[in-house]
Amino acid sequence: MSVPPDHLQGGHVPHAEMRQHNLSVVLRRVHTEGAVSRSELTRATGVNRSTTAALVAALARAGLVREEIPRTHRTAGRPSPMVLPVPERAQVVALEVGVERIRAERVGLGGTVLAERTLLPPSDGPTPFEQTVGRLAGLVESLGEPAADAGRCTGIGIAVPGLVRRADGLVRFAPNLEWRDEPLAAALADRLAPPWSRVPIAVGNDADLGALGEYARGAARGYDDFVYISANVGVGGGLFCGGRPVRGQRGYAGEIGHMIVNPQGRQCRCGARGCWETEIGTDVITEAAGLQVPPDHSLHGVVEAAAAGDERAERALDDAARWLAIGLGNLAVVLSPRLVIFGGGLQDIYEATFDRIELYSATTGLARSRAPYTHRRSALAHRAPLVGAAELAMAPLLDDPLGLPRPDVR
Amino acid sequence: MSVPPDHLQGGHVPHAEMRQHNLSVVLRRVHTEGAVSRSELTRATGVNRSTTAALVAALARAGLVREEIPRTHRTAGRPSPMVLPVPERAQVVALEVGVERIRAERVGLGGTVLAERTLLPPSDGPTPFEQTVGRLAGLVESLGEPAADAGRCTGIGIAVPGLVRRADGLVRFAPNLEWRDEPLAAALADRLAPPWSRVPIAVGNDADLGALGEYARGAARGYDDFVYISANVGVGGGLFCGGRPVRGQRGYAGEIGHMIVNPQGRQCRCGARGCWETEIGTDVITEAAGLQVPPDHSLHGVVEAAAAGDERAERALDDAARWLAIGLGNLAVVLSPRLVIFGGGLQDIYEATFDRIELYSATTGLARSRAPYTHRRSALAHRAPLVGAAELAMAPLLDDPLGLPRPDVR
Repeated sequence: MSVPPDHLQGGHVPHAEMRQHNLSVVLRRVHTEGAVSRSELTRATGVNRSTTAALVAALARAGLVREEIPRTHRTAGRPSPMVLPVPERAQVVALEVGVERIRAERVGLGGTVLAERTLLPPSDGPTPFEQTVGRLAGLVESLGEPAADAGRCTGIGIAVPGLVRRADGLVRFAPNLEWRDEPLAAALADRLAPPWSRVPIAVGNDADLGALGEYARGAARGYDDFVYISANVGVGGGLFCGGRPVRGQRGYAGEIGHMIVNPQGRQCRCGARGCWETEIGTDVITEAAGLQVPPDHSLHGVVEAAAAGDERAERALDDAARWLAIGLGNLAVVLSPRLVIFGGGLQDIYEATFDRIELYSATTGLARSRAPYTHRRSALAHRAPLVGAAELAMAPLLDDPLGLPRPDVR
Repeated sequence: MSVPPDHLQGGHVPHAEMRQHNLSVVLRRVHTEGAVSRSELTRATGVNRSTTAALVAALARAGLVREEIPRTHRTAGRPSPMVLPVPERAQVVALEVGVERIRAERVGLGGTVLAERTLLPPSDGPTPFEQTVGRLAGLVESLGEPAADAGRCTGIGIAVPGLVRRADGLVRFAPNLEWRDEPLAAALADRLAPPWSRVPIAVGNDADLGALGEYARGAARGYDDFVYISANVGVGGGLFCGGRPVRGQRGYAGEIGHMIVNPQGRQCRCGARGCWETEIGTDVITEAAGLQVPPDHSLHGVVEAAAAGDERAERALDDAARWLAIGLGNLAVVLSPRLVIFGGGLQDIYEATFDRIELYSATTGLARSRAPYTHRRSALAHRAPLVGAAELAMAPLLDDPLGLPRPDVR
């Protein structure tokens, strides 16, 4: 439904916007489902069959979709043509800036990965901002080279582990990269040569984009109210309510790792005391287990040590489960999600501790009365933020499939 | 804007829905603004002047609005007719079930209060559910009697201090009323005589409806991302993100009083330990100040004692400010609101402690980096949930101004 049912929602739908909107519904459906019958598109748009055929024809003329007659069909009558995306025709570059690596994918309409690259950092410790921008620019341009990539690039999306101002792609604070107020989108645009420099760049928080990725192509498909938790060295969250991302002012919502859950607890890198991530951050758990933090900051070692009977590792996992339950309980009372997804390094301890998280959850806020939620691990695993970055970059095209001027990047 | 800009939002706008949608835009605008010029409505709908005139004429034929030519005007040319709501033509009954009293208002289109009643509880302590339903039914029917109320009642909205399942108006848990799983909407419908028994009944959480009231007619007008905090004996919240209420699964979101902020703290009525409301509930603050809890559970006495130099009251306020800062900080990192509204009993200590809340806020999560928010006290004060209940009851009419069958209640 596109007419918002909510109280006091204002607005209007001039006739001129309707065609664009219906084109958008069709292209989004094809983009997320991969192959959709024309009759299904008729149901999705709510317009009649001939109008749907005209919408599909317009998208096909623009080269964005193609039609195919299914070879076998069981029902009588003519089979409904299937509509498929043309990945090469509309492409985006998705980038993820992490502490341990930079990843890049060139993604076509429909979510097809056409090319990918990973860069490890040149040295230990965080890479300075300017140097990172230079590496990102190199990656973007290298992804455009293959001769097969003759399509058009409609956007660049970047996932960053930090507070990101959506409007202009400024990274307000990324503690693990040691960045403060770095104008990432503007700096990358400056560094790229034409025609890349004319491609719009959108930047998002990695957990927000992880949630978007899971909603589009992962564990959250069909869930309109969910929380995606990405716990690594830091703990971030991506929130969806009523089928929409919760952004808050400037796009800063979802910083769930900085809820204070233990005012008598440890000092956090953010300056406060007792933030959730000081209890469930992967390095904190590893150190509590008396183990060396591995280069990838994963929790495999802790889980293995506990399974082998190491008491300190076992206690560290138990503590982590207790603090996970408290934070999850807080999110449950505030947002009442239907699903919680464990992403990032937290996936490693999901199976090992979930029975205990459940147990401790019985002692958290409103435990007896609140709505229960499903939980599962991320379906996209570490790719989730990158998938979300691609969706972010693709969004303007999906919103207005025939309206965008697109720089020709070959 | 009614075409949702969010990623992956599906849906369609068949032509048939457009007229309904535009009628809804016009009636909502008139309902919330009180008097709107036809040219302003043309801008709001985005359709042309003659279509706007036709929409207004259709609403006028249904008796919902009337037009008036302004007597004075400064600009040259014909003045644009003003469109006004006809309060008597579409009315709702708003009810608020509180621990201390039941309040009822009969509210007309445009928000005009046409009649009101307050009932005090017959005895000390919570009133049993069945008895409360009987009293509510009596109130509803008594509000319909005045001969002047010849209009049509399109709905009944009820605000309740507890978890409310939106779909069927079941009160899942209302600790201060001592209700568990009480089917309020169904029970009231059973108790009412025709034609009242045919009027749709919607039930909502009092803080959610307080937020809706403030958004429609109070302190949150123009703010799409805000938190409304209603702290009385219990602490509830109403959340808006991106101009929409955050409901979560079943409508249970916003139970901010049950975030655990102090795991070493007091036992909460919900069964957990260290919920926010065990630190900032009005009775907790009053008892910490060494004072008797007044019949209305207000904090006036504590504020006065502190102002008069009472050290214990002063310390109680200071503690309250510290815990308020922690919980507000948690909401700020999770939701990043642009505005926080202090409602309920918390209004009493808003002026007395805000400087300290600000001070303590500097030590909460991400304090240096997160987006700052405005704060203010509720504009509707204790009426906020009742105003929201009226909006809740009015919503179906506003969504589909000419489509509803309306039972004739005179």
